[in-house]
Amino acid sequence: MKHYIYGVDIGGTNIKLGLFKEDTLELIESTEIKTPTERQEISIFEHIAQEMNSINQKHQLKFDDIMGIGLAVPCPVKNGFVQKCPNLNWKTMDIAKNMSLFLPPHITVKVSNDATLAALGENNSLERPFQNAILYTLGTGVGGGVIIDGQILEGGTGLGGEIGHMPIPYETDEICGCGSKGCLEQVCGTKAIFKRTKELAKTEHTTINLEHLSVKSIFDAAKDNDPVGLQVVHEVSKAIAYSASILAVVLDPEVFIIGGGISKAGQFLVDLIEQYYQPYARFQTGSVPFILAKTGNQAGIIGAAHYLKK
Amino acid sequence: MKHYIYGVDIGGTNIKLGLFKEDTLELIESTEIKTPTERQEISIFEHIAQEMNSINQKHQLKFDDIMGIGLAVPCPVKNGFVQKCPNLNWKTMDIAKNMSLFLPPHITVKVSNDATLAALGENNSLERPFQNAILYTLGTGVGGGVIIDGQILEGGTGLGGEIGHMPIPYETDEICGCGSKGCLEQVCGTKAIFKRTKELAKTEHTTINLEHLSVKSIFDAAKDNDPVGLQVVHEVSKAIAYSASILAVVLDPEVFIIGGGISKAGQFLVDLIEQYYQPYARFQTGSVPFILAKTGNQAGIIGAAHYLKK
Repeated sequence: MKHYIYGVDIGGTNIKLGLFKEDTLELIESTEIKTPTERQEISIFEHIAQEMNSINQKHQLKFDDIMGIGLAVPCPVKNGFVQKCPNLNWKTMDIAKNMSLFLPPHITVKVSNDATLAALGENNSLERPFQNAILYTLGTGVGGGVIIDGQILEGGTGLGGEIGHMPIPYETDEICGCGSKGCLEQVCGTKAIFKRTKELAKTEHTTINLEHLSVKSIFDAAKDNDPVGLQVVHEVSKAIAYSASILAVVLDPEVFIIGGGISKAGQFLVDLIEQYYQPYARFQTGSVPFILAKTGNQAGIIGAAHYLKK
Repeated sequence: MKHYIYGVDIGGTNIKLGLFKEDTLELIESTEIKTPTERQEISIFEHIAQEMNSINQKHQLKFDDIMGIGLAVPCPVKNGFVQKCPNLNWKTMDIAKNMSLFLPPHITVKVSNDATLAALGENNSLERPFQNAILYTLGTGVGGGVIIDGQILEGGTGLGGEIGHMPIPYETDEICGCGSKGCLEQVCGTKAIFKRTKELAKTEHTTINLEHLSVKSIFDAAKDNDPVGLQVVHEVSKAIAYSASILAVVLDPEVFIIGGGISKAGQFLVDLIEQYYQPYARFQTGSVPFILAKTGNQAGIIGAAHYLKK
């Protein structure tokens, strides 16, 4: 009877839920609810269970039909435990246990980091998933997920795959959100991209509207050969390429998947990254392809469902 | 009856063999033979089988008492296959199959990269092995091995853990053995250390005997506050620390183990690495300890035996 799985992606603003068939992992329905802001160590799970109940009813399902639920959360997770999740005001907590409080005991709960599960989701959405894959999530923050031999990498404390905070050779006095400086995110995160654009616009002519900056406007300008847009996009591509050349000799992936809001720049960005990557690449790692993420903002729920099923 | 395992470490010059008890992985005997230089795709395995036979006889064992043999080889390996091994003149080859030609069919053969298996050997020789560990092997070449969730990391093609070829911010026009430039090995490998010592000695007074350079003499001089020795050791330590800070956010290890010939510099080197590591370390990764490798040149055979048993 237990032929269905839920994949849930808990963010600071919204919670996405997906109902999947257990055998094919076909997505039957996805919805989004607001992330509750009070008593979040309990209320988030309560709301998820309520929403599951609504979706079940709509599809004439009972909790008896549900095998389990995979949760993607915006913090380091190790074996289902979180130490601290500032986005959700969680402290040390057994996430799976708290979710289980609101579900019948037969429902399995598995939890991991959102970017890590997004990597699993993106990779498993490819026509032929790879055994070893790395996902870059380029957005306000720069994150990532690592798949090794088909399994997610959590690392010793759940911090595995925090590729946005790899140091890169980039001179700066500014402190990154992580407390250090010289992180990949300080070149490739949205904030850094905006700052760099404004800085360059002081001395270069640009068509970019500096009053209403968006990553899209900067990349669109670059495609139209705007000198400021071009320089920003080249710097971002170069930094990603450099970091990828490190990851290539350490992890030996079969693919780099470029995701997150910034990846909407599309093949233009991927081509530039690849161009910078080639001279950095060691051994045979120059042949590792870069591809665009395809699942949009559903990577988390898809990955969570796959993780549960494993 | 099959209560024994062999761990074998095949190098370009010597082949080390270890006979281990299967249950405790206690090392009963280890020997070393010369690596044959002709017809190496066959002769190496022939010689190993012959030497196993001799060791068996000495301990009144038969091949029936042997459960399996783990092989550590000096090249990238994926699922027992090698594409190219310049040190042994091997081309594309199923290593396990070739070894099996000379052994009774009940004997399991497992193969992986030597530095990767050394990581397994070093980690499993600790009083309390970690689930996530990284080994640096500092010698003529700089290599390494990565243990994730207790398993070795081979990566997609067997290149996983090639940390000696991580690019680091180091200005050089010289080409590394890998064909690229700016690799960690170009600062921390023996050749690089000798070259840098000679270079610094042109303008700095030193007690180091430049005619008979050894890593030991350079590190000993550093301990005696020789300015050239000190500078070289600081540069080496800084480069290792920098690379470790990258590995820490990508792999989230619980320990860094420093091995290889250069590590004979001992706690002096480890302390310096740790000192440089702290300001680079992100998040909670500053607490990851650096420790010295302990098994000397037996890490490969120990790791091979552990790998076979897994």
